[in-house]
Amino acid sequence: MSHTVEILSVGTELLLGSIANTDAQMLSQGLSELGLNVYWHTVVGDNPARAKQAVELAKSRADIIITTGGLGPTCDDLTKNVLAEAFGKQLVFHEPSAQRIRSYFERTKRPMTENNLQQAMLPEGCTVLENDWGTAPGCAFEAEGVHVIMLPGPPSECRPMFHYRAKPYLMGLSEGVIASHTLKLFGIGESAMEAQLREQMNEMSNPTLAPYAKEGECELRVTAKAENDEQAQKLLKPTVEQVKQLFGSKVYGVDVSSLEEVVSHLLAEKGLTLGAAESITGGLISKRMTDLPGASRVFKGGIVSYTDEVKTGLLGISEQMLAEHGAVSAPVAQAMAKGARRVLGADIALAATGVAGPDKDDRGNEVGTVFVSIATGEGSYVRALNLGNRPMRGRLRTQTAHHAFDLARRYLSGLPYEG
Amino acid sequence: MSHTVEILSVGTELLLGSIANTDAQMLSQGLSELGLNVYWHTVVGDNPARAKQAVELAKSRADIIITTGGLGPTCDDLTKNVLAEAFGKQLVFHEPSAQRIRSYFERTKRPMTENNLQQAMLPEGCTVLENDWGTAPGCAFEAEGVHVIMLPGPPSECRPMFHYRAKPYLMGLSEGVIASHTLKLFGIGESAMEAQLREQMNEMSNPTLAPYAKEGECELRVTAKAENDEQAQKLLKPTVEQVKQLFGSKVYGVDVSSLEEVVSHLLAEKGLTLGAAESITGGLISKRMTDLPGASRVFKGGIVSYTDEVKTGLLGISEQMLAEHGAVSAPVAQAMAKGARRVLGADIALAATGVAGPDKDDRGNEVGTVFVSIATGEGSYVRALNLGNRPMRGRLRTQTAHHAFDLARRYLSGLPYEG
Repeated sequence: MSHTVEILSVGTELLLGSIANTDAQMLSQGLSELGLNVYWHTVVGDNPARAKQAVELAKSRADIIITTGGLGPTCDDLTKNVLAEAFGKQLVFHEPSAQRIRSYFERTKRPMTENNLQQAMLPEGCTVLENDWGTAPGCAFEAEGVHVIMLPGPPSECRPMFHYRAKPYLMGLSEGVIASHTLKLFGIGESAMEAQLREQMNEMSNPTLAPYAKEGECELRVTAKAENDEQAQKLLKPTVEQVKQLFGSKVYGVDVSSLEEVVSHLLAEKGLTLGAAESITGGLISKRMTDLPGASRVFKGGIVSYTDEVKTGLLGISEQMLAEHGAVSAPVAQAMAKGARRVLGADIALAATGVAGPDKDDRGNEVGTVFVSIATGEGSYVRALNLGNRPMRGRLRTQTAHHAFDLARRYLSGLPYEG
Repeated sequence: MSHTVEILSVGTELLLGSIANTDAQMLSQGLSELGLNVYWHTVVGDNPARAKQAVELAKSRADIIITTGGLGPTCDDLTKNVLAEAFGKQLVFHEPSAQRIRSYFERTKRPMTENNLQQAMLPEGCTVLENDWGTAPGCAFEAEGVHVIMLPGPPSECRPMFHYRAKPYLMGLSEGVIASHTLKLFGIGESAMEAQLREQMNEMSNPTLAPYAKEGECELRVTAKAENDEQAQKLLKPTVEQVKQLFGSKVYGVDVSSLEEVVSHLLAEKGLTLGAAESITGGLISKRMTDLPGASRVFKGGIVSYTDEVKTGLLGISEQMLAEHGAVSAPVAQAMAKGARRVLGADIALAATGVAGPDKDDRGNEVGTVFVSIATGEGSYVRALNLGNRPMRGRLRTQTAHHAFDLARRYLSGLPYEG
């Protein structure tokens, strides 16, 4: 039997927007990996009537309900009450949990107020999920054909409570495994990607293909269900290969997190180093490279040349070139990359210049006019881009950095710069 | 009449946990500020039957439904169909939207596939919400006493679409006003802040005080309800003043978005320029400065000196100093700031060096050992930091950049560097 899950989060702070529902994301990821289908996320505030309504609904349509939040000691923490009532259970005092709470306060040398012991009131007959990361225990029970699991709300507690307490409980419920691979694409839009895949997607049931667009990149997740991982991988392999063939060099990796990660691995593999000269991206290329642990092995450094003065002084770009072509031009992009390569002593350098807005530049270049360039031991190359005339500043910079990394990725993989 | 809102997000990627529902957070925040009560968040996948069920439920319990996602060109984008059906409306072709979509593709020089025009199918009689940040238009209509607003899913589109399109529509619906001011603090922890405020917070009902901790900074939101904005401001003013007095120079701004924004304004005000030399932050300081529109007026540029070679070659730090003190040291931090100031020709320069991990550096400095420095026309200063021995890499870098900006903010405001 296949299971359907509803994640029910209780907390007014979610409805006020003070925090995002990262618990639901974390749980969804974990549950998908267990082969359990999450069909609904619901968020209600600390309001008994609406919480009750949400529980009744969840009970009617899911056979696994996972709640987050509302287990703490304050008076608005109502999850256990509402769930117990919905399944006709009493809350009973659980002495071992009370002991754990008392000793938690002793250990952290904080005074314990009496209301903390409310956290030891748990539905009769439940499995107590000990909380080693905070004070409120979780719990699980089965009633009326529905599995209920209650987890604490703070993400620093919810995550380990799921992985170490709820997961073992759920593993027994899921049958078979779900395995997936994610192909990452750059240089193609979501709709173009989907148009090319539509036929396959409609015909396929196992594995399935799911396209996503994400900050100027595309992802394709291929997911298969099977009895065990080996069989799932066997189902996945031909589809992954087929998609790779279909999109060619636009596929920049499988199960990788970013273009810069791919670039970083390729650099390490080949024993090469990278540098950057950044105008429009203002440090973003360097920042993304150094987000990666161990960046110092492959990344020499960068120059953020936000003014012409810095372009001439530090990158050695002639004033004549700047006067003739303007800072936002292909020759200057190329000279920036070459200059960075030289002064940073890097094997490869990337450069980006462009108009981030809000206004055109003084030469009348539109917002979104961008040049990215690469300089290597073998020469240099410029890609001219028009990233739209009303893009968001942040998005434009992100996309520009993507393009710069794409040039490095293509060079390091022996691919043509365009294709 | 007071309004109740349900936020309905459509997207399988949310149920798989590929992304967190940050749209719902952003909307909840914005709606709360309008005095609208958000009572439910619901997430369903790209499944017509379940989406329909969710819409029927929302219709029965909320009088404002805001949807996110499912407006795109791909076949699983079904929000408009389901909403139109639930309210007995037809989808009709909206030529101006089709024009906008066509010209978007022309502008960005990408081929347009036919399915993109599906995005121009909109519920009859709706108010079209033009999307200047992507291709899918949003829409709004009122039917059966319920206001429906549909917004695109990608956060980079959803956010501006809410602020510039949906908000004006909603402003007419809320009664009375809610006004708030947000005080931003740096250099104090959330619990210390709360401990100092606890008494006031318990006694207050209008305005209210809400503390938040966010990436190494603290926020205090002061919110008042009143008949009109003038009265609300009158209620807010004494509380804002009181909090400013209580926390002194730790309050770096009211209703500002970030430390770098404050620094940028102060620089512009005084006609001064900034530069940066970055080791541990790897470009983050420059990136954050250049995230701000108009950064070129106050920001000269930066040098990401990720290797000793770049520190000597570009910043003029002597090999002897590096050998004697190591790259992670107060003298090197100071020399980096001075070097950056000189070579970038900036009035003020910031520098950061430290151990970001995952391992100690080769001199045995622990992860989290950080030095930030400022060089000005009047001298230089170093702040030595220990940012904990098990921090996340990204968080450590963010906090380091905060500290650097804090030095600049203090210098530019005539405040002591510590206090």
